Amino acid sequence: MTSSSGAAPRIGIIGTGAIGGFYGVMLARAGLDVHFLLRSEYAAVRAQGLHVDSAVFGQLDLQPVQAYQSVAEMPPCDWLLVGAKTSSNAALAPLINQAAAPGARVVLLQNGLGVEDELRPLLDDSLHLLGGLCVTCVHRAAPGKVVHQSQGMINLGYHSGPAQETAAQQAIAGEGAELFRRTGLESAALDNLSQARWQKLVWNVPYNGLSVLLNADTSALMASQDARALIRELMLEVIAAAAACGYALPDAYEERLLKITDRMPDYLPSMYHDFAGQRPMELQAIYAAPIAAAQAAGCAVPRMQMLLQALGFLQQRNAQRSA
Amino acid sequence: MTSSSGAAPRIGIIGTGAIGGFYGVMLARAGLDVHFLLRSEYAAVRAQGLHVDSAVFGQLDLQPVQAYQSVAEMPPCDWLLVGAKTSSNAALAPLINQAAAPGARVVLLQNGLGVEDELRPLLDDSLHLLGGLCVTCVHRAAPGKVVHQSQGMINLGYHSGPAQETAAQQAIAGEGAELFRRTGLESAALDNLSQARWQKLVWNVPYNGLSVLLNADTSALMASQDARALIRELMLEVIAAAAACGYALPDAYEERLLKITDRMPDYLPSMYHDFAGQRPMELQAIYAAPIAAAQAAGCAVPRMQMLLQALGFLQQRNAQRSA
Repeated sequence: MTSSSGAAPRIGIIGTGAIGGFYGVMLARAGLDVHFLLRSEYAAVRAQGLHVDSAVFGQLDLQPVQAYQSVAEMPPCDWLLVGAKTSSNAALAPLINQAAAPGARVVLLQNGLGVEDELRPLLDDSLHLLGGLCVTCVHRAAPGKVVHQSQGMINLGYHSGPAQETAAQQAIAGEGAELFRRTGLESAALDNLSQARWQKLVWNVPYNGLSVLLNADTSALMASQDARALIRELMLEVIAAAAACGYALPDAYEERLLKITDRMPDYLPSMYHDFAGQRPMELQAIYAAPIAAAQAAGCAVPRMQMLLQALGFLQQRNAQRSA
Repeated sequence: MTSSSGAAPRIGIIGTGAIGGFYGVMLARAGLDVHFLLRSEYAAVRAQGLHVDSAVFGQLDLQPVQAYQSVAEMPPCDWLLVGAKTSSNAALAPLINQAAAPGARVVLLQNGLGVEDELRPLLDDSLHLLGGLCVTCVHRAAPGKVVHQSQGMINLGYHSGPAQETAAQQAIAGEGAELFRRTGLESAALDNLSQARWQKLVWNVPYNGLSVLLNADTSALMASQDARALIRELMLEVIAAAAACGYALPDAYEERLLKITDRMPDYLPSMYHDFAGQRPMELQAIYAAPIAAAQAAGCAVPRMQMLLQALGFLQQRNAQRSA
């Protein structure tokens, strides 16, 4: 590490929602030096701490919390984990640059396609940018309170930055995975971040949008033959789009995901919570970007398009109602 | 007419909901001899009459009403207009046979594909079967009370029965159109009922399903760029399916329908009312039958399929909740 060679790395959490809160608390409880940048939840977290109610690990409490209202107060961090919504990345870029120690690693704990490409031009050239793909069921229940229902694996892939050689890139992603493994969670370096992002979309595309459109959790969707057939067809569209873009996903990957989802608890994906909370949905990263990539590669994705159009209608109405 | 040669034809309305009530009242007020078969609304109609609150024609009241609780009490009718839901046709067939004068004309005032094909085997061979395609915005507001928002055109096409020659079939459809024209409404004989049914689906497929899925009337849908684009794409799928089945629809027909809908009042299609009232939606006639016909003709209709799957999910949940 540039700024703390030999010392324990300093970790900053930018966006302490469900994902940032969960991994931040896990890392802090593993003895790592974790600092949280907060906005609306600052006072609550300062007063009451951060709490994860985990079906896997039990009740995890972090109190006191190294919490900051302003990035100017934060010490420079070697790792910055960005758990905010993809739609706020551009606005967060100056804060990320300011919070970063020289040569820091910035990890986007976000779903969707193109999120690193959009942030990269706004980041200092000296920063390493990685994607972190989280497989976990978490949601924010109240300020400073996160509910963790199941899983927790996080895999890291290098996107861009000073490391030019593959070996150097893999070493940095491996360092990050090593940090996360200290929490007890599974974590590994990814060979190919884009491939992994497409693979993750195979789950996110059907379940996020359909949970909003049909006002249903995963169990209700999986119990319906109609919804199940539609989920499979959406998955197959994503798999075909990935292949057209040069990323061959594992054979029968849709069947594997359907089985995994059958075993999951009742789960409402993050897009459902965003919509219910009248916040913008991540339509660009999860739908528009992969649809554009598929179409540029000559692959028709009519169901994904239809889902995006339906969600676009709902998002616009939501915005009008809350205006 | 077989049973009333030279006399005014006797008209029976089977299923006095919005469509049956509207056309029945219009025909009765034009001086025709109209008899209404009713079930749950019999007492209300007997006591208070039938009323159409029309934005076009003003308040239309019919009192007393020739109303019947049982088909056995009805006089034999020369024309039977069936305004019930397509899903109840099979159950109504014995009543239609019983209410029909010899050689009567049975007209299905219904949307969708295949509705005559399903009913035909259950009807007496001596009966003429026609389809009546209604272009009108009506809904039932209360027992015996229909709201008519706009339009009213009805076109009739011969499906099957004793008339074998095209000229004889057209003559019968023309007789029916002549009856309806006596109300002041536009009405014509159709050359090709199947073609007309496909043409009508171009409107019904997008607006019926999306009004349910997005909980929105036509104005809200048309005001959204996303919903508008989706509506156009669904229309193009229906037009392509019709072409694959041998029915070439008018050029740029989707643009014409979008313009017509832009000029319509806020309108909630019948499927919306069925869903809101926790009644079964006409998914077979409006979606499943045309999808099957398209697929048999080698035409992919992914958006129609997706809409049917989403509606199937909602219908099943509706049924579970009301059970």
